[in-house]
Amino acid sequence: MNIGVVGLGKMGFNLSLNLLDHSHEVVVYDINQEAVEDLSRKGAGGAATISELVESLSTPRVIWLMVPAGAITDNVISELKPLLSEGDIVIDGGNSHYKQSVHRAEELLNQGIYFLDVGTSGGTDGARNGVCTMIGGNKEAFMTVEPVFRDICVENGYLYAGESGSGHFLKMVHNGIEYGMMQSIAEGFDLLEKSSFDFDYEKVARVWNNGSVIRSWLMELTENAFSKDSRLEGIKGVMHSSGEGKWTVETALDLQTATPVIALSLMMRYRSLEEDTFTGKVVAALRNEFGGHAIVKSEE
Amino acid sequence: MNIGVVGLGKMGFNLSLNLLDHSHEVVVYDINQEAVEDLSRKGAGGAATISELVESLSTPRVIWLMVPAGAITDNVISELKPLLSEGDIVIDGGNSHYKQSVHRAEELLNQGIYFLDVGTSGGTDGARNGVCTMIGGNKEAFMTVEPVFRDICVENGYLYAGESGSGHFLKMVHNGIEYGMMQSIAEGFDLLEKSSFDFDYEKVARVWNNGSVIRSWLMELTENAFSKDSRLEGIKGVMHSSGEGKWTVETALDLQTATPVIALSLMMRYRSLEEDTFTGKVVAALRNEFGGHAIVKSEE
Amino acid sequence: MNIGVVGLGKMGFNLSLNLLDHSHEVVVYDINQEAVEDLSRKGAGGAATISELVESLSTPRVIWLMVPAGAITDNVISELKPLLSEGDIVIDGGNSHYKQSVHRAEELLNQGIYFLDVGTSGGTDGARNGVCTMIGGNKEAFMTVEPVFRDICVENGYLYAGESGSGHFLKMVHNGIEYGMMQSIAEGFDLLEKSSFDFDYEKVARVWNNGSVIRSWLMELTENAFSKDSRLEGIKGVMHSSGEGKWTVETALDLQTATPVIALSLMMRYRSLEEDTFTGKVVAALRNEFGGHAIVKSEE
Amino acid sequence: MNIGVVGLGKMGFNLSLNLLDHSHEVVVYDINQEAVEDLSRKGAGGAATISELVESLSTPRVIWLMVPAGAITDNVISELKPLLSEGDIVIDGGNSHYKQSVHRAEELLNQGIYFLDVGTSGGTDGARNGVCTMIGGNKEAFMTVEPVFRDICVENGYLYAGESGSGHFLKMVHNGIEYGMMQSIAEGFDLLEKSSFDFDYEKVARVWNNGSVIRSWLMELTENAFSKDSRLEGIKGVMHSSGEGKWTVETALDLQTATPVIALSLMMRYRSLEEDTFTGKVVAALRNEFGGHAIVKSEE
Repeated sequence: MNIGVVGLGKMGFNLSLNLLDHSHEVVVYDINQEAVEDLSRKGAGGAATISELVESLSTPRVIWLMVPAGAITDNVISELKPLLSEGDIVIDGGNSHYKQSVHRAEELLNQGIYFLDVGTSGGTDGARNGVCTMIGGNKEAFMTVEPVFRDICVENGYLYAGESGSGHFLKMVHNGIEYGMMQSIAEGFDLLEKSSFDFDYEKVARVWNNGSVIRSWLMELTENAFSKDSRLEGIKGVMHSSGEGKWTVETALDLQTATPVIALSLMMRYRSLEEDTFTGKVVAALRNEFGGHAIVKSEE
Repeated sequence: MNIGVVGLGKMGFNLSLNLLDHSHEVVVYDINQEAVEDLSRKGAGGAATISELVESLSTPRVIWLMVPAGAITDNVISELKPLLSEGDIVIDGGNSHYKQSVHRAEELLNQGIYFLDVGTSGGTDGARNGVCTMIGGNKEAFMTVEPVFRDICVENGYLYAGESGSGHFLKMVHNGIEYGMMQSIAEGFDLLEKSSFDFDYEKVARVWNNGSVIRSWLMELTENAFSKDSRLEGIKGVMHSSGEGKWTVETALDLQTATPVIALSLMMRYRSLEEDTFTGKVVAALRNEFGGHAIVKSEE
Repeated sequence: MNIGVVGLGKMGFNLSLNLLDHSHEVVVYDINQEAVEDLSRKGAGGAATISELVESLSTPRVIWLMVPAGAITDNVISELKPLLSEGDIVIDGGNSHYKQSVHRAEELLNQGIYFLDVGTSGGTDGARNGVCTMIGGNKEAFMTVEPVFRDICVENGYLYAGESGSGHFLKMVHNGIEYGMMQSIAEGFDLLEKSSFDFDYEKVARVWNNGSVIRSWLMELTENAFSKDSRLEGIKGVMHSSGEGKWTVETALDLQTATPVIALSLMMRYRSLEEDTFTGKVVAALRNEFGGHAIVKSEE
Repeated sequence: MNIGVVGLGKMGFNLSLNLLDHSHEVVVYDINQEAVEDLSRKGAGGAATISELVESLSTPRVIWLMVPAGAITDNVISELKPLLSEGDIVIDGGNSHYKQSVHRAEELLNQGIYFLDVGTSGGTDGARNGVCTMIGGNKEAFMTVEPVFRDICVENGYLYAGESGSGHFLKMVHNGIEYGMMQSIAEGFDLLEKSSFDFDYEKVARVWNNGSVIRSWLMELTENAFSKDSRLEGIKGVMHSSGEGKWTVETALDLQTATPVIALSLMMRYRSLEEDTFTGKVVAALRNEFGGHAIVKSEE
């Protein structure tokens, strides 16, 4: 299939290679023209501008966006919109908020353009060798591009999830679950670390990956991580987050659903960003006030 | 290897079959003699009493206990102790508390008997076809019985974890992680259920099992569960627990370790055992007191 | 001071009486004209419409809104705006979101009208006899109306908190703290209820109100509640919420601040709205899948 | 009343002064004889040994223990036991675990000695000027010493709670509630600190203490703390704990009661004891493994 890819970061670059592997005619664009040239050498068509990319595609055009969620996605869609024709299909493979995807689908449909919101999972390796995708939007548009999903995804690794927004909703919730699973694993190893036993964490992760109830890809990654740094001495326990966990908790609040584990997984990430907390200062001050309990003084 | 198995419940029965598959000479005992006879027909030696089981084993004897943790394990060990000789090896494959295992190992060692605390994971299917084990205790005793673990476990599915207690400690923490992972998955599906989208949960679980970051055995079981009852309409959301999650949280408290996700996973299970809560009554009453907010009256 | 009050619900009605007690010239309006007439009999001026209310006030006008947050507040302000003159002061005493208050202040200021966002606390009793207020907005406008706050608030019970939004921000956080305190108290009594001791809860609350570290108005309300229904048998533990706790948690997420206790207080309220949970069904199904643990069947 | 006091730390010393204020004949003992002499100068009888203290009391003797919970309390009781006679009354005013109090009461009763477990609250100031007590144990023994409680407690500030253990159980739960309330207040101020507004925390605490729903002694202490250090810059946010919160959570687990807020209040204290966490390292490592997300390196 003739397909355009906009955005050649870690994910978009690997996805383009994955498409090329399966003999799709890929035309690529990125503001970083080095990435474009690199892929051109590997068999993709390169475009210097978005309009060049649009022009080089046969209709109905299929354009896969793999750009940062939010303003940049908005900008790219705004630039694309006047260039596209009825029946063209825009795929947003980024981590967009599902409500924005619902909105974008409506806006594009006013002009006869289809919009598919596609949650992708599997990391950079998955993008390269077999990704997992959850797809929302117009069903016929999906069926038009289904061959692409069949090729670039692992077996059984794509799902048409339903109306617009459902793909990104699934991806959001997927990430919420991921936060909870990661925190669960991490808390477990913290207990091992605090115990008086002397565990070899790589071996523990390995045995848990072979036959146990908690065997999982995340535990395999845990095994990998410990194989490189047996006690993670080189890593600081600062847990950043990229937004989807926050959206999951916000959605839980909107849906009045108790998701304590996902919420706490997120909040412990926030906590890890701070060396000291004002919460802690207040509690320490209160203990000192009523019980005369000693406080730890701040270093000058 | 010549090995005795005491306790032929779901796990012990399957483990015995697993041992027989690998040509071990298994002698079995259970208070339920039907299970003993059943296994006798399948090639095991049957014992009518514990002392008969002990007598029928060659020294150094190897006896695998697969009985309920706590008092029953204590009773079986008390009965075994006077019958055993120096150099014999007792394996506790049950879900015993690691501190009890440390204590039992010391007590038996006073008599020259070795005690291995073995955490087992993988469910009943694992016990039958390839289990995962974490082993604590005397290293030489472990090496004596290592061929058994090599046979009954999946590849890379056993780990000598260190001194007495370490096997059951690992199993305990494994279960803590399991609680967190299960709650994470469940909260995610609860959000799908509350959303306005119309998801096919079996298909969602399937796509998440193929290429996604959260692919895992628990997600496969989720897929199985939804394949049998697509919206779990036949199941009440009562979440029982068998004790290891509680021990994990108690251990976290003893080690002064923050494990919010494991703790909340457990507490939400407790919450699920109650139709109504006194906590809720107090909060509702307070809202009524200060704001005149309406309360929901108990049904007569 | 000549002051208009729009909105005569539980809070606005009591506040008007409070103002009358302190010899303010109060003109009141509500779509419910019965409340208007009732207050007229008690010394207030009554207005049949908002424009009548505006006309009956001397300039610079001071108008206190005590209407439901959100759309209704918006509507009232829209109706007021063309009727007001430069220098008039609109006070929003409702539970508006602080971001909306920032926005409204800007909009009204474009027309030379001042807007004060006033968080009020103390319940209906407080509104009647001595309220607690946190005030954001233009400082000079505040100083113009400060005599009103001095009269209707308890001693030291009003605070000019700073720029627009700060009053409602403080009220929002106040409610977040309130959620946490209420849940803390309620969990404590739940432990008493589950224990094997036979406590008299009213007496427990009373002793805790006299000299203990946790003495507080909420504990006094707890004492009151138990004095009416000693085991709260007439109340169902359904914990509704009116929005400010949710805003607090959303704000915590926006500010990347770990507020586990406020977040969980809210989530346990959501949990209390459900008889059964999908989360629970999934966990129960999973336990059944891997361990053959019995599930509780849904009633037909 | 003739009463002995053993243990003259901050609490015991103040309590002795409180007793002297009310004209009780107090005999005091502490291993620190300076405290004994100090109180002697203030009107108490001083004892150089426990047996001297016992001898100097008229029967039935009343002895109030105010010593650290655990081993020291055990030692003192062991030393006292052979010296006491039938009908004597031992009062444990320390923070003992309620199960130990049940046990101690049984043991002493075997010898005809009564044991009252007395939870005390109100801090050092309370001990001096009016304490809050929750009393468990034999009711007649309580009635014998009730005049003491009437004198040293604030009005309505003592409660006979029921059988042995109930006093310390109430105190334990009281502290659990206290943890939750303190964390609630602290999280609230953390949100103020993170916001873009510029709040004066002392003034905020003051306005919340005057008429608001969350007015409380803890909020008064918050006001005091901010009056001394307006942004708590001199205090590190390290939140120690002295054991009763942990007991509360352990009891919640034993009673299968969901107490998420008390549990999290405790766990955030544990979290505050660590500069960096192994949990954080594992999550950071995992994010790096699957998404190539940058990690923060440990400083050398």
